[in-house]
Amino acid sequence: LPLSEKALIRRTRQRAGRAPGVLGIGDDCASVRIPPGHEALVTTDFSLEDVHFRRRLQPAASIGHRCLLRGLSDIAAMGGEPLAVFLSLALPGTLPQSWGDEFLYGLLKLAGDFGITLAGGDTAKSPGKILADIVVLGSVPRGKAILRSSARPGDRIFVTGTLGGAATTLRMLLEDRKKKGPAAELRSYFYPIPRIEVGHILRKKGVASSMIDISDGLSTDLAHICEESGVGAEINADAIPRARYGKLRKEVDLRLALHGGEDYELLFTSSAKTRVPAQIANVPITEIGRIVRGRGIGLTLNNKITRLVPQGWEHFRN
Amino acid sequence: LPLSEKALIRRTRQRAGRAPGVLGIGDDCASVRIPPGHEALVTTDFSLEDVHFRRRLQPAASIGHRCLLRGLSDIAAMGGEPLAVFLSLALPGTLPQSWGDEFLYGLLKLAGDFGITLAGGDTAKSPGKILADIVVLGSVPRGKAILRSSARPGDRIFVTGTLGGAATTLRMLLEDRKKKGPAAELRSYFYPIPRIEVGHILRKKGVASSMIDISDGLSTDLAHICEESGVGAEINADAIPRARYGKLRKEVDLRLALHGGEDYELLFTSSAKTRVPAQIANVPITEIGRIVRGRGIGLTLNNKITRLVPQGWEHFRN
Repeated sequence: LPLSEKALIRRTRQRAGRAPGVLGIGDDCASVRIPPGHEALVTTDFSLEDVHFRRRLQPAASIGHRCLLRGLSDIAAMGGEPLAVFLSLALPGTLPQSWGDEFLYGLLKLAGDFGITLAGGDTAKSPGKILADIVVLGSVPRGKAILRSSARPGDRIFVTGTLGGAATTLRMLLEDRKKKGPAAELRSYFYPIPRIEVGHILRKKGVASSMIDISDGLSTDLAHICEESGVGAEINADAIPRARYGKLRKEVDLRLALHGGEDYELLFTSSAKTRVPAQIANVPITEIGRIVRGRGIGLTLNNKITRLVPQGWEHFRN
Repeated sequence: LPLSEKALIRRTRQRAGRAPGVLGIGDDCASVRIPPGHEALVTTDFSLEDVHFRRRLQPAASIGHRCLLRGLSDIAAMGGEPLAVFLSLALPGTLPQSWGDEFLYGLLKLAGDFGITLAGGDTAKSPGKILADIVVLGSVPRGKAILRSSARPGDRIFVTGTLGGAATTLRMLLEDRKKKGPAAELRSYFYPIPRIEVGHILRKKGVASSMIDISDGLSTDLAHICEESGVGAEINADAIPRARYGKLRKEVDLRLALHGGEDYELLFTSSAKTRVPAQIANVPITEIGRIVRGRGIGLTLNNKITRLVPQGWEHFRN
């Protein structure tokens, strides 16, 4: 059965749950209480079929999970806490109802894991492909959000977790070799955990001087930090924590660790004198370089320094 | 020239302006200060090509204006104040740059009229048609939002302005008679003013017991009030303030005033003993019926009562 707009609203409302301080679906707006002394954080992210995902490559629940992940990761990158989520969803009339149900299941499961509720949104029948736009409302103590614009020369550069795993997995799926790799690997691509807790601790302990999430790829997201802060950077290729894959636990290609996006790890800077732990909330933290005066990013590889040109993730080229 | 995603971001950022308490485009999230003692209001609305608008029927600036209007009207219906707007916009690669520029012009002009800034969003290249999703963040004193669920039997029912004008204009445009009517009429369809000020006054003076905006049509939106409040309603067809059009200032068809949407007027209820002015902020206020016990909506027409079945605006049927 195709999922009608009315059925979608009803099913979403049934599953949405309730959270304290949130008045959700069923009125013109949702109202959300912002904790005292906090300011509101807002982020919006499209998840468009054949731009951000392909329907055949992953389960609908994973597409729903990753749709919300994009927003939660942005909240994490400010050192904030999520409060509520809003979903605008347009599905083609030909899509089976089970697809919408599984998409919502994946999205609401992740929301539940972080104690937040689906508080509103919009639905429509799509004239073409699947269209989702996610909005996450969060909060952070006033004036304490960790910005992209506050990196200073001399700061060291760190990343959480490992990089290149998402791009490598996606490449394997696209090449459709039927060697889909061990299930555990696909799971980390299909259902990554947003770094909310790490971001929160980095802010609370005053460790990060600037921060961004690595959604478009290390080279592009580090370039954003540099542009917004008016600084340059030097990173060491050997230091980049590359994801491992396959039975041989082979390291992913360096280019995918540098430019492949969708890992949703955090990149942050820290002043030279700040102590940075080797792991936070069980997530490894790795130093990969430092902030310098000037512009551009230098990459040290085999004792040579080359200029690292941002080659951000372009999802699926049409 | 087609509008590249990068150019769109740059141009949006240049035009977005700044507002006090809002840290906007250029970071992972926008941060927005909520006034003390207020709670946050959030609303999201799709504007999808060939679902909510047709590119050839109206100027791009009007499509941008109406895109934001949908969100502002939801804030008005809670009696709230808008604080910031977020736009997710996906344009096909073939669209001329001027279309995106005019769309943004229309949207930002309306935002400026209400003193709010475009504080963030997302952009993508659309794999198909024009896709926009608007988010408006607003605020209202804590616990003071005017809900859909608080109408009580005995309350009188009021609407602002006139109804059916948008649907009539749209029908004329769709029929493409080349009689596009007087410019002033098209302007009221292309660039309607959201009822923020009226909503604010209704809340502040304690006039409205429940409220909704008429976006889907009177029959559908009154049904929402009834469902959420667990009540019924009786309205009088002769009392409905119908829009007038053409040189003869003819009243629009009753069915379009009852079921045609997109007028973005407010529908509110008020207890029997509350004094309701004949106009608020220069907008006429008209009593059209009353809330009763039970379920469903009765329509009095030519001394007969019939059941009014919600026949909400279905935009463009595909």
